[in-house]
Amino acid sequence: MISTMLNGGRILLGPGPSIIPERVLKAMAKPVLGHLDPDFIAMMDEMKALLRYTFQTENNVTFAISGPGSAAMEMSLVNMIEPGEKAIVCSNGYFGERMRGMIVRNGSIPVDVKAEEGQPIDPVKLDKALSEHPDISVVTMVYAETSTGVQSNLKELSDVVHAHNAICVVDMVPALGGSVIKTDEWKIDVAYAGSQKCLSCTPGVSPITFSDRALEKILSRKKPVSSWFYDLKMIVDYWGSGQKRAYHHTAPINSLYALHEALTIIKEEGIENRWERHKKVQNYAQDKFEALGLRNIVEQEYRMPQLHAVEIPQGVDDFECRKRLIKEFNIELGAGLGDRLGKVWRIGFMGEAAQTTYVDYCVDALKKVL
Amino acid sequence: MISTMLNGGRILLGPGPSIIPERVLKAMAKPVLGHLDPDFIAMMDEMKALLRYTFQTENNVTFAISGPGSAAMEMSLVNMIEPGEKAIVCSNGYFGERMRGMIVRNGSIPVDVKAEEGQPIDPVKLDKALSEHPDISVVTMVYAETSTGVQSNLKELSDVVHAHNAICVVDMVPALGGSVIKTDEWKIDVAYAGSQKCLSCTPGVSPITFSDRALEKILSRKKPVSSWFYDLKMIVDYWGSGQKRAYHHTAPINSLYALHEALTIIKEEGIENRWERHKKVQNYAQDKFEALGLRNIVEQEYRMPQLHAVEIPQGVDDFECRKRLIKEFNIELGAGLGDRLGKVWRIGFMGEAAQTTYVDYCVDALKKVL
Repeated sequence: MISTMLNGGRILLGPGPSIIPERVLKAMAKPVLGHLDPDFIAMMDEMKALLRYTFQTENNVTFAISGPGSAAMEMSLVNMIEPGEKAIVCSNGYFGERMRGMIVRNGSIPVDVKAEEGQPIDPVKLDKALSEHPDISVVTMVYAETSTGVQSNLKELSDVVHAHNAICVVDMVPALGGSVIKTDEWKIDVAYAGSQKCLSCTPGVSPITFSDRALEKILSRKKPVSSWFYDLKMIVDYWGSGQKRAYHHTAPINSLYALHEALTIIKEEGIENRWERHKKVQNYAQDKFEALGLRNIVEQEYRMPQLHAVEIPQGVDDFECRKRLIKEFNIELGAGLGDRLGKVWRIGFMGEAAQTTYVDYCVDALKKVL
Repeated sequence: MISTMLNGGRILLGPGPSIIPERVLKAMAKPVLGHLDPDFIAMMDEMKALLRYTFQTENNVTFAISGPGSAAMEMSLVNMIEPGEKAIVCSNGYFGERMRGMIVRNGSIPVDVKAEEGQPIDPVKLDKALSEHPDISVVTMVYAETSTGVQSNLKELSDVVHAHNAICVVDMVPALGGSVIKTDEWKIDVAYAGSQKCLSCTPGVSPITFSDRALEKILSRKKPVSSWFYDLKMIVDYWGSGQKRAYHHTAPINSLYALHEALTIIKEEGIENRWERHKKVQNYAQDKFEALGLRNIVEQEYRMPQLHAVEIPQGVDDFECRKRLIKEFNIELGAGLGDRLGKVWRIGFMGEAAQTTYVDYCVDALKKVL
């Protein structure tokens, strides 16, 4: 049954890309419109509303950038942090380190708040760092760290950031559409996400949102952003409101059709229902994995709902196993990133795949190859 | 007949995006594979070969970047020119100026070789500038300037660049798959293109190629590129050869399926045949436009084959006309860019649309609205 649903495609149960529903694929294959066509602009306006709903924000500047999640990450950072400026970088894994690297490349100065891999960011440590650096106005962090499967307590961290009157830049790449996200209620200033995780959409377009506070900081920059492609001010002129749009670049039109459809599906389901579904499937899956002897490397309360990072049992050949899963069961799991390659699998039930049928299919296949 | 071919989509006869053939749309809607899936990697390898054919190059580093043509432009520039370094910028229009702006943002120093808008770049001026600045090692230029419809003599310009032992970075955004391009024969060191022009593919992925000479310069950089997303060295590790690929970012998988199919169509047609077809349709269209009293703003010998920049006749309301063309004939033409808005139309027959049937349909519609 599962393979019929997928129309012959791979059963993607890793850290993303995730399975794309037929409706989204069909939307993507619609004939192309011009990037300044009135019909296309109407679609962009609808999409902004859908993105606001999904992020749970009223932010006016909410759109999708024409690049992968990592480009959204870099765009957020280089707009918010000037060269020579210090910023606190909370890091507990691969993607936190990627943020740090981008900040260094930009000529900005990272001040580290580190947690062990597999542990969440510690609000107490963050508070201490902010107290020690009263000159710092930007804090960056990863909500759900896909490299280890850890989800930090974003509300708590954001409260600390705002107690120091700083700005909070949050990576939500795998989180949006799966983890609970309340951008406005939690006072997140800048957030970005991937399309190919819990939105179950095609990769290459990335939702992003900026609060008015974040925009104020951008407007008070001493120098323009050193990248033309990333300069938010110009992009906003294209995604702005009304019929009058300034040409910036040719938007990835078909991918945006797909995103529009993926977000429509989320609106139909209801975002709270979607969060609940991911949580339920997480509970269902982790019981099954435990029964199989697959130990999750993260403590229960810090696990992200859409991804299970489990230890590969002693004596099991990672590469051979994943090869068999693809060949015999058409399943792709995620390998461990960096040092964890060969030691950990990352098994994701994201968006469309957050269904118990996928868990069952996956567990049955694992039983056979382990 | 035309509307059947398009499956109800807009008839795109502007400067791009262009009409996407059904085959390409279908390829894009295939179920997604992981970005490190062996089947996907095999497709990437095929695509590199197809891109080499289309660029007419043997360059090993030939791939598609995960962003629009303007991102490919900026990526080329920031890899090839370091902050503080001078570069000669040949500019005869909007996109030459965009390159210049990016160079300034990067902290590099542009030395201008300008031509009037509507005129090609002058090799004599370029030669003079290179003689006056023997310290400059990079020259940038736009082959076909979509803002005015001018195509410069790229072979001649490249000869001048190489006589001074400099490196040639060329914008081929609208040119690839339509204008004659002989990357290796003409010794072009870096070239990039758009997918949504003469390749008739979805926008959002951009072909790019680097010669070994260009790579040598990148390898001898004093500092890494200030953008993580643009750093060629890391991207090459993902697009490299063999089965071993380093994760960089999640590629826009469906858009790459589409590009693969669009390039396959080009291979089937034969690149020389495709150039010839664009040339023939250009001749056919310009006679018809002249008969209609639409004056091309570019001298005959400098016109690019895929785009006609024509003066809007006195007394004709640009906006009303384009609105009627969309409403009554489902045709999108290109407006004038910048100062030329309201004065010029840009009418393109690119890729799939480089057929006399599209010219006839367009001319008939223009007859009715003028």
